[in-house]
Amino acid sequence: MTEIVVQNKKKLVLVTGRAYPELAEQVAFELGCEVSTTDLRTFANGEIYARYDESVRGADAFVLQSHSTPINEWLMEQLIMVDALKRASCKRITVVAPFYPYARQDKKGRGREPISARLVADLFKAAGADRIMSIDLHAAQIQGFFDGPVDHLFAMPVLLEHFRAQLDPATLTVVSPDMGRVRVADIWSEKLGCPLAIIHKRRDPKVHNQVTVHEIVGQVEGRVCLIVDDLIDTGRTIVKAAEALKAAGAIGVVVAATHAVFSDPAVELLQSEFIDQVVVTDTLPVPPEKRFDTLTVLPIAPLLARAIQEVFGDGSVTSMFEGAA
Amino acid sequence: MTEIVVQNKKKLVLVTGRAYPELAEQVAFELGCEVSTTDLRTFANGEIYARYDESVRGADAFVLQSHSTPINEWLMEQLIMVDALKRASCKRITVVAPFYPYARQDKKGRGREPISARLVADLFKAAGADRIMSIDLHAAQIQGFFDGPVDHLFAMPVLLEHFRAQLDPATLTVVSPDMGRVRVADIWSEKLGCPLAIIHKRRDPKVHNQVTVHEIVGQVEGRVCLIVDDLIDTGRTIVKAAEALKAAGAIGVVVAATHAVFSDPAVELLQSEFIDQVVVTDTLPVPPEKRFDTLTVLPIAPLLARAIQEVFGDGSVTSMFEGAA
Amino acid sequence: MTEIVVQNKKKLVLVTGRAYPELAEQVAFELGCEVSTTDLRTFANGEIYARYDESVRGADAFVLQSHSTPINEWLMEQLIMVDALKRASCKRITVVAPFYPYARQDKKGRGREPISARLVADLFKAAGADRIMSIDLHAAQIQGFFDGPVDHLFAMPVLLEHFRAQLDPATLTVVSPDMGRVRVADIWSEKLGCPLAIIHKRRDPKVHNQVTVHEIVGQVEGRVCLIVDDLIDTGRTIVKAAEALKAAGAIGVVVAATHAVFSDPAVELLQSEFIDQVVVTDTLPVPPEKRFDTLTVLPIAPLLARAIQEVFGDGSVTSMFEGAA
Amino acid sequence: MTEIVVQNKKKLVLVTGRAYPELAEQVAFELGCEVSTTDLRTFANGEIYARYDESVRGADAFVLQSHSTPINEWLMEQLIMVDALKRASCKRITVVAPFYPYARQDKKGRGREPISARLVADLFKAAGADRIMSIDLHAAQIQGFFDGPVDHLFAMPVLLEHFRAQLDPATLTVVSPDMGRVRVADIWSEKLGCPLAIIHKRRDPKVHNQVTVHEIVGQVEGRVCLIVDDLIDTGRTIVKAAEALKAAGAIGVVVAATHAVFSDPAVELLQSEFIDQVVVTDTLPVPPEKRFDTLTVLPIAPLLARAIQEVFGDGSVTSMFEGAA
Amino acid sequence: MTEIVVQNKKKLVLVTGRAYPELAEQVAFELGCEVSTTDLRTFANGEIYARYDESVRGADAFVLQSHSTPINEWLMEQLIMVDALKRASCKRITVVAPFYPYARQDKKGRGREPISARLVADLFKAAGADRIMSIDLHAAQIQGFFDGPVDHLFAMPVLLEHFRAQLDPATLTVVSPDMGRVRVADIWSEKLGCPLAIIHKRRDPKVHNQVTVHEIVGQVEGRVCLIVDDLIDTGRTIVKAAEALKAAGAIGVVVAATHAVFSDPAVELLQSEFIDQVVVTDTLPVPPEKRFDTLTVLPIAPLLARAIQEVFGDGSVTSMFEGAA
Amino acid sequence: MTEIVVQNKKKLVLVTGRAYPELAEQVAFELGCEVSTTDLRTFANGEIYARYDESVRGADAFVLQSHSTPINEWLMEQLIMVDALKRASCKRITVVAPFYPYARQDKKGRGREPISARLVADLFKAAGADRIMSIDLHAAQIQGFFDGPVDHLFAMPVLLEHFRAQLDPATLTVVSPDMGRVRVADIWSEKLGCPLAIIHKRRDPKVHNQVTVHEIVGQVEGRVCLIVDDLIDTGRTIVKAAEALKAAGAIGVVVAATHAVFSDPAVELLQSEFIDQVVVTDTLPVPPEKRFDTLTVLPIAPLLARAIQEVFGDGSVTSMFEGAA
Repeated sequence: MTEIVVQNKKKLVLVTGRAYPELAEQVAFELGCEVSTTDLRTFANGEIYARYDESVRGADAFVLQSHSTPINEWLMEQLIMVDALKRASCKRITVVAPFYPYARQDKKGRGREPISARLVADLFKAAGADRIMSIDLHAAQIQGFFDGPVDHLFAMPVLLEHFRAQLDPATLTVVSPDMGRVRVADIWSEKLGCPLAIIHKRRDPKVHNQVTVHEIVGQVEGRVCLIVDDLIDTGRTIVKAAEALKAAGAIGVVVAATHAVFSDPAVELLQSEFIDQVVVTDTLPVPPEKRFDTLTVLPIAPLLARAIQEVFGDGSVTSMFEGAA
Repeated sequence: MTEIVVQNKKKLVLVTGRAYPELAEQVAFELGCEVSTTDLRTFANGEIYARYDESVRGADAFVLQSHSTPINEWLMEQLIMVDALKRASCKRITVVAPFYPYARQDKKGRGREPISARLVADLFKAAGADRIMSIDLHAAQIQGFFDGPVDHLFAMPVLLEHFRAQLDPATLTVVSPDMGRVRVADIWSEKLGCPLAIIHKRRDPKVHNQVTVHEIVGQVEGRVCLIVDDLIDTGRTIVKAAEALKAAGAIGVVVAATHAVFSDPAVELLQSEFIDQVVVTDTLPVPPEKRFDTLTVLPIAPLLARAIQEVFGDGSVTSMFEGAA
Repeated sequence: MTEIVVQNKKKLVLVTGRAYPELAEQVAFELGCEVSTTDLRTFANGEIYARYDESVRGADAFVLQSHSTPINEWLMEQLIMVDALKRASCKRITVVAPFYPYARQDKKGRGREPISARLVADLFKAAGADRIMSIDLHAAQIQGFFDGPVDHLFAMPVLLEHFRAQLDPATLTVVSPDMGRVRVADIWSEKLGCPLAIIHKRRDPKVHNQVTVHEIVGQVEGRVCLIVDDLIDTGRTIVKAAEALKAAGAIGVVVAATHAVFSDPAVELLQSEFIDQVVVTDTLPVPPEKRFDTLTVLPIAPLLARAIQEVFGDGSVTSMFEGAA
Repeated sequence: MTEIVVQNKKKLVLVTGRAYPELAEQVAFELGCEVSTTDLRTFANGEIYARYDESVRGADAFVLQSHSTPINEWLMEQLIMVDALKRASCKRITVVAPFYPYARQDKKGRGREPISARLVADLFKAAGADRIMSIDLHAAQIQGFFDGPVDHLFAMPVLLEHFRAQLDPATLTVVSPDMGRVRVADIWSEKLGCPLAIIHKRRDPKVHNQVTVHEIVGQVEGRVCLIVDDLIDTGRTIVKAAEALKAAGAIGVVVAATHAVFSDPAVELLQSEFIDQVVVTDTLPVPPEKRFDTLTVLPIAPLLARAIQEVFGDGSVTSMFEGAA
Repeated sequence: MTEIVVQNKKKLVLVTGRAYPELAEQVAFELGCEVSTTDLRTFANGEIYARYDESVRGADAFVLQSHSTPINEWLMEQLIMVDALKRASCKRITVVAPFYPYARQDKKGRGREPISARLVADLFKAAGADRIMSIDLHAAQIQGFFDGPVDHLFAMPVLLEHFRAQLDPATLTVVSPDMGRVRVADIWSEKLGCPLAIIHKRRDPKVHNQVTVHEIVGQVEGRVCLIVDDLIDTGRTIVKAAEALKAAGAIGVVVAATHAVFSDPAVELLQSEFIDQVVVTDTLPVPPEKRFDTLTVLPIAPLLARAIQEVFGDGSVTSMFEGAA
Repeated sequence: MTEIVVQNKKKLVLVTGRAYPELAEQVAFELGCEVSTTDLRTFANGEIYARYDESVRGADAFVLQSHSTPINEWLMEQLIMVDALKRASCKRITVVAPFYPYARQDKKGRGREPISARLVADLFKAAGADRIMSIDLHAAQIQGFFDGPVDHLFAMPVLLEHFRAQLDPATLTVVSPDMGRVRVADIWSEKLGCPLAIIHKRRDPKVHNQVTVHEIVGQVEGRVCLIVDDLIDTGRTIVKAAEALKAAGAIGVVVAATHAVFSDPAVELLQSEFIDQVVVTDTLPVPPEKRFDTLTVLPIAPLLARAIQEVFGDGSVTSMFEGAA
């Protein structure tokens, strides 16, 4: 039989929503390619439109969106982009959501609540996503919400590298701002070779129904405290922790977080006298008006680019973090 | 065997998103029940939260949302509400979307576009919706986008009743504002017993690449023209049509539409000297600042309530419109 | 580790049902391959059997069927062929249905009707189809019925090329045979650089409940009229339109359509004195007994072959039609 | 809260395709209801149309079709009917297929074959069927092809009752016409309290590649032989078996089968001198021209009606056959 | 039309696997019904067989299994039981797994691991489960692993009631045995009105790579310590915590846990001199050989029975725990 | 645009559960690769853990498990392994189950039974399997239980080759041990060119309700009898058949079967004086304590290796058995 047989090639396509296109540009630069141009528009009544300018047929597509405010707009935009890729005969679609939307709604705290983090996974699936890539999920269990592979990246190597050059383990203490974050802080303390302290928010037995006491577990007096968290939203928890640390004799308070959500009044609060430095990555855009003197924003693009490269080339994402210690 | 056997009852639960809660209140009033109270909130970073105050276990739930601007917010809110109902053991969930979001993106006009109206159907399904109820879909084919029953209601009886009392068929002409709407206009002309005219937007052969000519087909001179459409978005098409009709000798121009999207600059344009009256329903909220002297807003709640009653009671929605002639 | 790693190749396999095997032969000829031989049989009680003579493992398979009468037989045959491909470890299965079956049942015109065009999409999916390729869908929304990519081809370039050599734009008018086809006719008029006319079927106010008046919008007197439609079924609409055009002074009537369904009594009607020429493609077989003097059948195989080539080679189907103007 | 709570009722709706409407009428009569009127039509090009005349909202619907020739037509008709029921908000849809279509294609005999019996189950599911009811499946494993409940009925009680009055166990031998049917024949022999014989088709060692020898296992000389099978298609196997039995000294040959497929030349063959009587049920229509003197057709409607009653009333279908011995 | 319309009833059916049938008996007793008899057997090669003795058609079935060792046997048995219920036309199937199997494998701790807790949810779904009921999930996020409603019950009210009568809040301290359990311990401390202490397992900086230090946060000297945990597996963590507490001056150590997994050498370890009392529930069977003097086993059946009653009767499971404070 | 396009390679990965790792080693040896190392463990409470030591991203993975006792353990282990492969971004996952678990529960023999063979297919699918490979399925219909390709291999060529060298067709008779196996025995008799005999288990009419008579159909006196079966479980059927054959004058009895389930008391029974030789393959492990003098175990690894090679290389599995005659 006269058959038609050809070599199979694969093509990487990177597209981005409008939330933070500069991040995609940086990722593309690291990869050595360009972001595929996409016609993205919002109609008069708020409906979003997407169209790819060039063929994506058979491509291994990565759809990057940074879920900053207005978060529902950007989520819908990404879903629409995925739908268009699916219908344009992409071979594989990876949703890249550095900050996973609705990650904090990962369980029913009470009856008749949604599990919105699962819903988001279902929506990505329904739109046509084959895979998800995200950074520092609020709960690792979210990986189990998606029916398919999830590449869970960690920003710690990026942050650690920054601190290694700057902080002295001899005088440093890693601090977990609440009980839910102790495991992550524990890993930091080990990586940096310094002790751990924990802040326990407790209801004051003398004042009814109000959290006022921030009890500190561990030695912080005379030490530089590095508070580590996955995200900073309004900053209220962080600044209270910093105040408690300073009150307990800390000589410095540095805050490190992956996701700079920075909802009001975070920018104001983080410039508190109790905080000496704030270090975040740009998984979410940090516009000029949200930047302040003591803030350092580390670029996340190199990490994303390397992970995309491993995924595209059938390498290993796991091994990216094995050498991180 | 000692068995436990009980009579099976069914319970109607009506909940609403925050886009237009008054509509749900009116529907509940018509039904003789109350809207179930729901805790709906938007967090600092824009994420939405929902929780039902009372048990919805085993209920036949109707989740009403009016998809006005910001349309993606309200869509996400409704999806989250559906997810919460599903996880709270509702028996059946009907999404009530009087104005179906993204209805105009119902096909790929060109390659590499999404079919967002299908995507919306898939998102509702993924969240847990069993059924959809909507009014005057932009294209009837959208019913086929959802894998389940769709109750497609028509606002025509509501609008017709208004006009029957007011307009004289002897001097009236029904006008389709463009080619895509002729079928609907044809039904109107028959119901009202008056002639039909059509406006054909044509490219002016003398001016390159621009739609300028609004050709009128049918007799409009000396007649009152009733332009009928499914929705009014920016109003540009309508006002041009009205101008053309007046230029052709129409003695009056009345506009009837189901969905008052009213994006800018609709409110300004619709107060044009060429339009004598605008009649819409409130499938979408029409706030005071969008109301003007020549605008009449007819309540859609009675129609929705009757349809919900038929669905809940296993009656017939089809028969609601058979007697409408 | 001793790993086994090989270059990945891909193989195109083209198979066909028994409705119109000649079309597949022509497509294969254009592609430069052969149709894979398949054992297709109908058992005594009407059940259909299919088996591929050669391995299709890992292949990129295209299953062509032309949905002529008996349409349900050919649809079932294609579904069975898809099932056999799926179970034989094909890598990807594209259903090629030049004339999409049940395309006209694309919505619920009334309550309690099926949406058979959606059902057909679901049946293809259930059998194992990954993709669909079709030509001139009756409604573009049908693309949204399938949960996957749909390659929607247009026969217009094929037909246009035929007419460009033959008809003079200076004396030509493009005619839409009813309101539902105006958009397509509009594109034709622009491509050919000639005016547009529309036929509006209206109920005669003097005769109860009967469509008798065929109102013509636009200038046709002294002109050659080109009626364009997606399909010709019984031919009744077309011949009435032609008669009306001649009565209005047209000096010639030419009919162009993609799908030659030609149900009885189409062949007889199309030989009417009011029609000077009929031009169709062979998306459906036109057997000798259905051919007549004034009929021209243009081959559709080159278009299908080029589209299959683009799909197989991860090229662009969209770009096939961008240069068509 | 003012709630709306009502008693839940359930409604049985019985509809039928056009293959054998008389069967549905008989079932309805047994049930004490009427067949719901349905508008079923075939368009000029062979496409089928269905619409229910009355509301089926919330109903427990049974869609009966008898899969006689043209079998693909009747299968598609039933699928379209199921789609329409699904979209009309039926609560539960049971496909009643007394003779399961494509039952004999229940496995891949060789590579690259379909498993059409599984495909049929998938098509029913895709269309919206919740349950299947069938009689004497060719292989019991077909129950496992459907992802949901299958009510597998047995016609044996109906046939047995007929024979009990007529045949004398003392002179009767039950015969299995081939190896694949021995289990069923074994049950018959036990129920009737008479011995079993088996016919083994063997290739004649002297004639290459041809089945000629019908070896009989068991005593048949001087006895009345009752050949039992699930279906009679062309009748070739049966008549050869009968001939062999008579040659071996049988004094009478009676044939019993559930499904009277009766493809050509069954009617002619079954009137063979070697067969004294043929008894079937009417799971498939047996039109007058297929009836002959020695044929008895037993009505299957009472069995179907009783099973539908048990399903509708949450009784037990299993127990229908426990008392059958 | 002669319609058949009947009142709809619903029937509760409770069945159980063989892991801990006594639990089901107790639940049935509380509900006032009987456990439906089921034929459960293990064949010679280890395959499990299940058959229900009575009709479950239309029933609201609850399938209880207690996932003790051999856990994979009991899981497969429950899956097989669910499959049989699905195929027997049950209306709704609720898997009751008081101790959710594989709950601790709820995330990928490292690359290339399974998320077995999600897999278990998928297996239940694949078998046909509509709902899951479980007690004190190891991580609340597991609720999001199942695509449907999960009734998450809490054993705290059962345990609390036991301790209220016995322990004096004035001298009591609630202790979290590790960082992951602090939130639950916090709720206990509030409910009992007594302070909280936490045990932090730390790597000893002087000894490489080994967890040796059990640091205690909070006042335990001279107090009775109540260690609360979701489960006790080998008991190693618990006994080390108890030892550390006694070393820090605790005058009594009481352990409370929901799930008595009690793998070797738990029974031996828990009889340590450092532990004065162990209180568990019987979500898992505690056979006589695993019982010891200081162990109290509280019956969980009343809680399960009440929850099943609420689910069956469309009441509220949420409200069961609102009054628990 | 600067695109990234690379050649696509594919990689074969073979992993195995702990039931019979030697089989995988042999398959790997035949393939010329190594089994990928996997960390497989059972925790104290019986839960299984799996982790792959090396990246499987993009791989074509084959997961081999031999379903010996404890069969549910090994099935769960394989499901967990599949889940881990899916989440590690494997491209394609083939479950290799030489002996398909629960194959004998392939239908509902009575009401309210499960169809466990279908359930197993559903569980594999739910875990993430794309394909299944198995040998000598108990019923060929099981292929239709899985929604995807099933490579059904036959051990007959392996067994035949063994017997060809050893047995003389002139004195050999192939024997089917019961009615259900006649078709397979028929193929053997043809391949070996020797006659066929059948054993019919019948209820003794003189003894109520008990199977005692083993009637032999065909000539066995003075001949060597080769009993062929798909599996040997407890061996009871086989030894009774052998006894009957010897009683009927057979001069030798040889037993051939694919799957050596060998549940108690098979090893004892098979050493009966009536059986001269037993030949099986090692689709299931046959440990030393189950081996006896008259037993021959043929290696199945070459067959599996060749099939895996064909699947990986897009060759033909069908053709492996075409040359087998």
